[in-house]
Amino acid sequence: MKDLEQLNQAMQAVMQAARAQVLAKMGSQLTVAEKTSRRDLVTNVDHSNEDFLVHEIRSLDPAAHILAEEGTGDQVASMQGHVWIVDPIDGTMNFVHQRNHFAMMVGLYIDGEPTLGYIYDVMAEKLYAGGPQVGVTLNGKPLKAPADLDLSEGLFGASSPLLINDRFHMQQITTISLGPRIMGSAGIQISQVLAGELVGYLSYLRPWDFAAGRVLAESLGLVVSQVDGRPVDMLSSGAVLIATKRAQSTILAIS
Amino acid sequence: MKDLEQLNQAMQAVMQAARAQVLAKMGSQLTVAEKTSRRDLVTNVDHSNEDFLVHEIRSLDPAAHILAEEGTGDQVASMQGHVWIVDPIDGTMNFVHQRNHFAMMVGLYIDGEPTLGYIYDVMAEKLYAGGPQVGVTLNGKPLKAPADLDLSEGLFGASSPLLINDRFHMQQITTISLGPRIMGSAGIQISQVLAGELVGYLSYLRPWDFAAGRVLAESLGLVVSQVDGRPVDMLSSGAVLIATKRAQSTILAIS
Repeated sequence: MKDLEQLNQAMQAVMQAARAQVLAKMGSQLTVAEKTSRRDLVTNVDHSNEDFLVHEIRSLDPAAHILAEEGTGDQVASMQGHVWIVDPIDGTMNFVHQRNHFAMMVGLYIDGEPTLGYIYDVMAEKLYAGGPQVGVTLNGKPLKAPADLDLSEGLFGASSPLLINDRFHMQQITTISLGPRIMGSAGIQISQVLAGELVGYLSYLRPWDFAAGRVLAESLGLVVSQVDGRPVDMLSSGAVLIATKRAQSTILAIS
Repeated sequence: MKDLEQLNQAMQAVMQAARAQVLAKMGSQLTVAEKTSRRDLVTNVDHSNEDFLVHEIRSLDPAAHILAEEGTGDQVASMQGHVWIVDPIDGTMNFVHQRNHFAMMVGLYIDGEPTLGYIYDVMAEKLYAGGPQVGVTLNGKPLKAPADLDLSEGLFGASSPLLINDRFHMQQITTISLGPRIMGSAGIQISQVLAGELVGYLSYLRPWDFAAGRVLAESLGLVVSQVDGRPVDMLSSGAVLIATKRAQSTILAIS
């Protein structure tokens, strides 16, 4: 286990270095491009931060495969061996228009097993780190598992398209809960589930949106599944639910 | 103007003292009661913080009238003279269930004129303070007025009942914008409009929800009105829009 602990410490240092670089670049004008729509953005900082993270991961784990949002990594068709999944800036819309409420995320899977995860809420300076074997920390201190609250006992993280269009019974789900919250970043909202601020989060996600979060959530006794309860596939996109056990059970009975 | 500047400095110190007390009390078990529903909460900290704020305001401005959310202050039927409007904990649901994303707010109106305002995002430690005569500061440093972006150029602050039920064309408004954000606290969302993180915020609000925000927003060149464009009344509740000039213009054309 020593190697994994060393890797965990090294990756936390990498995330901190990445944060410092992102903060420094935020002082300059951003270069913003649209990917698929005016709501799907990428900036020079997404690219430079992905380059940095991929470079650092290659140094730490040269034989690994790396799946990265902006395409700097490898073509990854299998979860065999070491697979790192990287989102250099999650919530790029917030990054561009709020300079706040965005996250950097990295997950490591070994032969498909969730092993290490990192979510960095950059502006709040909160680094969630670890995994099932090394434990989960927030800024280096052990993070307590959130209480296993039912859906009716907590706030629920939503995405606006699912809420407005009532996909997956999102309106019923949030009505049973104490209310919806919409932050516009999977990383931020998943970190709020880890912190016990939300009893769950449901959104249409791509692998890099939830790879880190799944590792951390499962390490804390939370559950991660597709919206119909089936296991998630780390190489495909879909509606993903991250929740307490009790909230998941209530939601699966609705969906 | 010296008196108003002294009052502004004194009130910032009061807000900081209030924050320290709230943080200290958060270490103990909260006493939570429902007011009108399971989503309308009040805690021992709302009460104790209101007591503190009202006491401090009475010391600074003995002849003033004070309208306070939890009823500690006066029956206020007129905006003549000095009227202070106090929300000791805005976003009590977040305070109870997230221990995050709540605000303390105080506004001073003199003969109906917005004069001083304070919004304290307690956990992010961001104190927005000032007014049209003394200027607006964030943690003591001058706050730049946000850019006059149009609705389509920014994110929009919504409340979940208005979004889900499409009241006041909220779905169309957020579709024109870059997307809705829902934080569950008027104080937090209004502070995001002040900071330029949102181009506007529309919600059903009571006087203490927007009294401070109106002072600060108008001081920064933002506009505050009812959803149909009529002036707000500081002694009644209704759908209130706080936005950039251009976003307001676009929204009024829709509504």
